Amino acid sequence: MDKKTYRLLEDYMLCCMEDSAHDKEHVYRVLYNALEIAKGEDNVDYDVLITACLLHDIGRKEQFENPKVCHAAAGADKAYQFLLGQGFDTDYAEQVKQCIQTHRFRKNNQPQSLEAKILFDADKLDVAGAIGVARTLLYKGIVSEPLYSVLPDGTVSTGEDDDAPSFFQEYKYKLENLYSKFYTERAAKMAKERQPIANAFYNSLYQEVNASYQNGRSELDQVLQ
Amino acid sequence: MDKKTYRLLEDYMLCCMEDSAHDKEHVYRVLYNALEIAKGEDNVDYDVLITACLLHDIGRKEQFENPKVCHAAAGADKAYQFLLGQGFDTDYAEQVKQCIQTHRFRKNNQPQSLEAKILFDADKLDVAGAIGVARTLLYKGIVSEPLYSVLPDGTVSTGEDDDAPSFFQEYKYKLENLYSKFYTERAAKMAKERQPIANAFYNSLYQEVNASYQNGRSELDQVLQ
Repeated sequence: MDKKTYRLLEDYMLCCMEDSAHDKEHVYRVLYNALEIAKGEDNVDYDVLITACLLHDIGRKEQFENPKVCHAAAGADKAYQFLLGQGFDTDYAEQVKQCIQTHRFRKNNQPQSLEAKILFDADKLDVAGAIGVARTLLYKGIVSEPLYSVLPDGTVSTGEDDDAPSFFQEYKYKLENLYSKFYTERAAKMAKERQPIANAFYNSLYQEVNASYQNGRSELDQVLQ
Repeated sequence: MDKKTYRLLEDYMLCCMEDSAHDKEHVYRVLYNALEIAKGEDNVDYDVLITACLLHDIGRKEQFENPKVCHAAAGADKAYQFLLGQGFDTDYAEQVKQCIQTHRFRKNNQPQSLEAKILFDADKLDVAGAIGVARTLLYKGIVSEPLYSVLPDGTVSTGEDDDAPSFFQEYKYKLENLYSKFYTERAAKMAKERQPIANAFYNSLYQEVNASYQNGRSELDQVLQ
């Protein structure tokens, strides 16, 4: 890819990115992760990969405004139309579209091409480790969801089996289980290296808040008449 | 304090709390922390302490709507008026007011009474450790601030000496330095126990993102013609 094409794609990405958990720096991290992962693979089409990385989240705004819209589907269509409008050929635009369509966790919509698998893994790496915890917390702030739920007995829920959305629920439902879901060896290895800090953070946070509730509530019962 | 009075204060607190980094669970943690800290002190006025804890952040909404307003000052006035209106005596309302006024980091406005010092420490404990990191990230999401700044040379700033607000800037400016600022021994000890996970999380996050930018940008330079 030449630098002029890169700037054209980057500029289009920049005008589509908004929230701070899926901002332009997330896109750069995904692109950089993808290039790192690609080093472990043969015959990567770098033009398709770079284009798909830059444009993979341009449908976020549509999903944010209407939660029924899937940002992967909306972004794939937007990217396809943008590329055709800019004179890229149909086959190329179609390959990019396929990558973007399948970058989200979906049982019946898995990445097929090598570039689609690399984009998927690069995006999931940004939900692993400390960066995954940090981005999830930012997002919980944006959508006004709490850190945890308090159970009827006054203890803090671990998040397991929770229906109500919270950081702990998202950690147990998604963050804790993503480490087995990578397609490439390189990404799986990078994610595994990041796993201990995410686990340690969740465990410490749970211990801090649970101890506070358990001790505090029993103190309060003693103080109140 | 009798349970009826506790419910009256709790209900007033509940109708004043909004954002997810300073929600009602923050208030309960501060109250529970305060009761834990109080166990290490003599002659604590539990009525004043509990009231001040429950009402310490009721001025948050006023500050959020107008950043020039200090939530400690606004909350102290609101609490004072509420208590007088409910028939509490002036001296009691004044003691609570003093506690709330001085619960925020301010060089020229330090807590004087034992109860004010305990409230200050209990509130600062909720900025220490994993809970401090988690709440700061939630808040950055709420106010649409990023995780870090990227320097002109394309590396990720550690946050030190940054002017632009970000999670790393807040960590270096506030979170990293709070462990020496407690008034009570018990709170200082509890905070110290929480310090390693906050440090480990910051360090891991910095390493993850910085490695991504450093490696990725050099890969990108090689791929782009």
